[in-house]
Amino acid sequence: MTDQSATEPLYGAGLWHFGQFRDRYATDGYGPPVSTLEAIDAAGQVGSLSVVDINYPFNPADLDIAAVEDALKANNLRAIALTPEIYTRTFCRGGFTNPDPEVRRQAIELVSQAADLTRRLGGDYVKLWPGQDGWDYPFQADYKALWAMSVEAVRELAQRHPDLRFAIEYKPREPRNRMTFSSAARTLLAIEEMDVPNVGILLDFGHSLYGLESPADAAQMIMARDRLYAIDVNDNFRGWDDDMVVGSVHLVETFEFFHTLTQANWQGVWQLDQFPFRENSVEAARAGIEVMRTIWRALQVLDTEALAEAQARQDALAAQRIARTALLDAQRA
Amino acid sequence: MTDQSATEPLYGAGLWHFGQFRDRYATDGYGPPVSTLEAIDAAGQVGSLSVVDINYPFNPADLDIAAVEDALKANNLRAIALTPEIYTRTFCRGGFTNPDPEVRRQAIELVSQAADLTRRLGGDYVKLWPGQDGWDYPFQADYKALWAMSVEAVRELAQRHPDLRFAIEYKPREPRNRMTFSSAARTLLAIEEMDVPNVGILLDFGHSLYGLESPADAAQMIMARDRLYAIDVNDNFRGWDDDMVVGSVHLVETFEFFHTLTQANWQGVWQLDQFPFRENSVEAARAGIEVMRTIWRALQVLDTEALAEAQARQDALAAQRIARTALLDAQRA
Amino acid sequence: MTDQSATEPLYGAGLWHFGQFRDRYATDGYGPPVSTLEAIDAAGQVGSLSVVDINYPFNPADLDIAAVEDALKANNLRAIALTPEIYTRTFCRGGFTNPDPEVRRQAIELVSQAADLTRRLGGDYVKLWPGQDGWDYPFQADYKALWAMSVEAVRELAQRHPDLRFAIEYKPREPRNRMTFSSAARTLLAIEEMDVPNVGILLDFGHSLYGLESPADAAQMIMARDRLYAIDVNDNFRGWDDDMVVGSVHLVETFEFFHTLTQANWQGVWQLDQFPFRENSVEAARAGIEVMRTIWRALQVLDTEALAEAQARQDALAAQRIARTALLDAQRA
Amino acid sequence: MTDQSATEPLYGAGLWHFGQFRDRYATDGYGPPVSTLEAIDAAGQVGSLSVVDINYPFNPADLDIAAVEDALKANNLRAIALTPEIYTRTFCRGGFTNPDPEVRRQAIELVSQAADLTRRLGGDYVKLWPGQDGWDYPFQADYKALWAMSVEAVRELAQRHPDLRFAIEYKPREPRNRMTFSSAARTLLAIEEMDVPNVGILLDFGHSLYGLESPADAAQMIMARDRLYAIDVNDNFRGWDDDMVVGSVHLVETFEFFHTLTQANWQGVWQLDQFPFRENSVEAARAGIEVMRTIWRALQVLDTEALAEAQARQDALAAQRIARTALLDAQRA
Repeated sequence: MTDQSATEPLYGAGLWHFGQFRDRYATDGYGPPVSTLEAIDAAGQVGSLSVVDINYPFNPADLDIAAVEDALKANNLRAIALTPEIYTRTFCRGGFTNPDPEVRRQAIELVSQAADLTRRLGGDYVKLWPGQDGWDYPFQADYKALWAMSVEAVRELAQRHPDLRFAIEYKPREPRNRMTFSSAARTLLAIEEMDVPNVGILLDFGHSLYGLESPADAAQMIMARDRLYAIDVNDNFRGWDDDMVVGSVHLVETFEFFHTLTQANWQGVWQLDQFPFRENSVEAARAGIEVMRTIWRALQVLDTEALAEAQARQDALAAQRIARTALLDAQRA
Repeated sequence: MTDQSATEPLYGAGLWHFGQFRDRYATDGYGPPVSTLEAIDAAGQVGSLSVVDINYPFNPADLDIAAVEDALKANNLRAIALTPEIYTRTFCRGGFTNPDPEVRRQAIELVSQAADLTRRLGGDYVKLWPGQDGWDYPFQADYKALWAMSVEAVRELAQRHPDLRFAIEYKPREPRNRMTFSSAARTLLAIEEMDVPNVGILLDFGHSLYGLESPADAAQMIMARDRLYAIDVNDNFRGWDDDMVVGSVHLVETFEFFHTLTQANWQGVWQLDQFPFRENSVEAARAGIEVMRTIWRALQVLDTEALAEAQARQDALAAQRIARTALLDAQRA
Repeated sequence: MTDQSATEPLYGAGLWHFGQFRDRYATDGYGPPVSTLEAIDAAGQVGSLSVVDINYPFNPADLDIAAVEDALKANNLRAIALTPEIYTRTFCRGGFTNPDPEVRRQAIELVSQAADLTRRLGGDYVKLWPGQDGWDYPFQADYKALWAMSVEAVRELAQRHPDLRFAIEYKPREPRNRMTFSSAARTLLAIEEMDVPNVGILLDFGHSLYGLESPADAAQMIMARDRLYAIDVNDNFRGWDDDMVVGSVHLVETFEFFHTLTQANWQGVWQLDQFPFRENSVEAARAGIEVMRTIWRALQVLDTEALAEAQARQDALAAQRIARTALLDAQRA
Repeated sequence: MTDQSATEPLYGAGLWHFGQFRDRYATDGYGPPVSTLEAIDAAGQVGSLSVVDINYPFNPADLDIAAVEDALKANNLRAIALTPEIYTRTFCRGGFTNPDPEVRRQAIELVSQAADLTRRLGGDYVKLWPGQDGWDYPFQADYKALWAMSVEAVRELAQRHPDLRFAIEYKPREPRNRMTFSSAARTLLAIEEMDVPNVGILLDFGHSLYGLESPADAAQMIMARDRLYAIDVNDNFRGWDDDMVVGSVHLVETFEFFHTLTQANWQGVWQLDQFPFRENSVEAARAGIEVMRTIWRALQVLDTEALAEAQARQDALAAQRIARTALLDAQRA
């Protein structure tokens, strides 16, 4: 069943994977500060990464774009996207939905600058993760107003940069207790309201998982509307965005997720969004890619015809056996 | 601030509230069997119910519709809706999405019969709760196919009964591990694909709560599209559809939910969907209505202007204080 | 690394696995009624089961014990335990903790009868699953009183049957919203208060998983006190007791669980507690055993020494790689 | 029913309530840095706080203890406890359970220093929150070893400072994916193994809530063993430690919690552990205290006799009505 001609996907990672992690307890950081150039070098050391998604502003903020380009080149990496940081202190009460119209404007302008740099770097999309847009308390917000501000901000950006694509990464919660773009379906509704052709979705496997979605189903729904611009993978214990190494908990569902993408002939990058707080970040990236490669090999030996027949009968036992067999055979595929 | 002329809403209940409950452990039932007519009499005893949503087929299945009409009349009740039971043994592997096309047909025809009876009884809508439509295992289903079958079945029903309204009750899970109509946003996407004017949503507060939505926000989103046909209220511990008495856990968010409906001038029935497994069902209904009445009185004393101002600032502390003050004043309002 | 002399464990199942399932929606059952003798025959058909845990009272209730013995013998099965049904209608407001002392007495006497039959059948333990002992609502219960009643009831049973062992199966919730014996640690505290030598724990992998425990850690804690009398395995989506086929979601953690048991030289039966609502029950049991056998083979090729070294360093990446390698090699082991 | 002579409790707060918050996104902090002395001044501004629990090392680390004493005095505050920060970068792979024995020693010594200062400041207990002690991945840890290290470290501290009390604050997870002291029952088992008289528990209401406990029940269980040294209150959406303002979501269960403490005649401080990321910290503390005062007044008008009777019958409807009535009457009590 193995298709010898099948080409392995490109692998990528968010550059923050190689940065300094903090949280509300280890406020001094889980390790020393890491500059953008150092992070690019670390990404290069992984050995099998082709692209990176880079936080913007760079670290330090005055880092020259040419230096970034050089570092990428030196490490055989390409910038697939920029992620404007519209979730730091300035935006902690909201980026696109901040009650202060000036801060909303700042958020939009920061994204717009990132868009300009994405163009220069030859990226595929601008990543939008408005992590501070949402609410924390019952009664705190006028939901209708928040929704409108979110929709309008992204529409404005898409219209100002019609040659670029904007990928919204939805997430159920964190850092806000509840977020505006919280699920695949909500984000699709928002995109429809925007009525622009260049806004789509970055599906983060872990966000989908702990948001009570079946990630493969969410991917299917987004692809049916041609809006799956990118994916991030990682894993968690289903109650929070733990950003663990791919497949460390949900090996079967990760396999199903990539199977669904492959069946739909989705051609994007298989991209890591892991937070190895206490692990070596280069090793953690290698581990994630190792698992993705195992899954890729499993896809080559998967009996897709038998699986489709089992699924037509909704025969869980048969479908699971077919999938498990392929997964366990992947080692030697 | 009290508007003396404000009219209290109508109260309603799902008739199952007064039926026999079972689960997978007390398979002999939490109490004796209850016929449809007995359940109507129990609903009548509550004293403040105006409408009921009735399971179909009736119990016993050959019960004459005229007898149902008589019983309703005798208890000063009106049938607001019928709920066709497309989730019993026949449909346990799916109603609209059953792998067997004949069973899918049976499900559609059962709903269609219920629609005819809803018309005769003068109901407002047919309630669709396709509880067995979804999946249990990773790899079990072709999500695209399930979605298409669900959309087409409801569209067909809506087109066959253009004079009636169909209200889809979404739910994240149970009895299926994952359900097709799982959230407000997904259901809105499905309704949009149906492209018919007479399909909307019944928002169950508890389903929304444990589905990681903020129920008030979900209501807002549905109302913005004019699709909020009905609501059910109850409560839970946020991890499952416990169907507890209204306000027994989430008093504040229940208040917020009704505030949002009221602000949008939503005119529907305040309806109970409680499962008092171990309580007297008439008393449990009275308790739920007592809480709803407290909330209604709180709405009369709520300083909506100050609240709107606090929300414009997204000031959680001020908004919560205003809401809490009204709630605690409700007793004497 | 394979130890050719290692003996495969015995496999078992709860007899309910082969019975009729109901829930609150498919109140007419997911299939036809199944008698105790029919269920034993179904268990026999699986082909690799050695023991069963049998619900008591039998179905029908007046079934002669000799007929049960004959059926077991005919199917090469042994009764490892009896599970008295202290969670049906009579006990729906509590078994050991019912507010009515007469019902509490009934619960104790039903278990005592089951104990007598367990002795006659040569079982290893009486299974105690007081599913209705707990509470549903805030303020409903005097927690101290419930705890005392639970401890005293089990102690009395243990003292009346000092030659038998009683295994408490803890569970976070369902059918009660909160249960008295809800976790490994709580149950160990209760057992300590009982101060009898013959009460232990049945650890259900799925209960542990959705109760926020790490099942392997919970097993370790119980074994450290010599109280792990039995285990049940299955799987779920971590939010509810879905009782899915073993390993269908959490293959890695199931492997870790059995690794922990094996390292501690735990010698009990590997036992199924699956609820194949919509699947063929014999096939579902075979599927579960197939997965357990894969895990058993993986244990034979696991590099336990390297794993122990990685764990001493708390090196997650290395430990996961060692485990994953063994799992993926199991197919050909 | 109001007991005019009842004395209002003392109110307290963790000093971090007034500090700078960070998380993994707003790595530059939700506001500017705050020194220990500034935080004490902010606590003083609240107006109704009597005690604070102070992080150690102070900020800056070389701050003189006399300056802290002066600041406390100037603000009419007393240090009820010190919280040694055994969860910062040095300890990010574990404090008491770090794989490196030297780091374990550092953790113990840091706590020991905090103990000496607690003695000098006249505090009631040393707070132990070993937030980095646990594991993140399946297979990562030898659970038995982690448990032993945790038990031994706390025992050593208790024995070195027999005149002081040590309060363990348990938490299900965060920052570790799973923590060693994760629940009331587990911590009680650990304390029993320590076999020292001066180790107890700080029960954090929110930790208990999202750990699937009923906080009132957990409190009862700890008090039954005389180990409830302190409490922290806050609120959350039951899936994470959101550290919201007291009563903003779970007003009813917060009331039940304090009722249980009061019934048992527990005399400790009612203490805040809120994280007002985006709110004014002084105002947030005032809001939390306002809610606690409302609850205190509600306790004065609660019909405890009728409630006890309802609980003896396990009558949820009656018990809830009694509680709700008191809560709604509290405003005017």
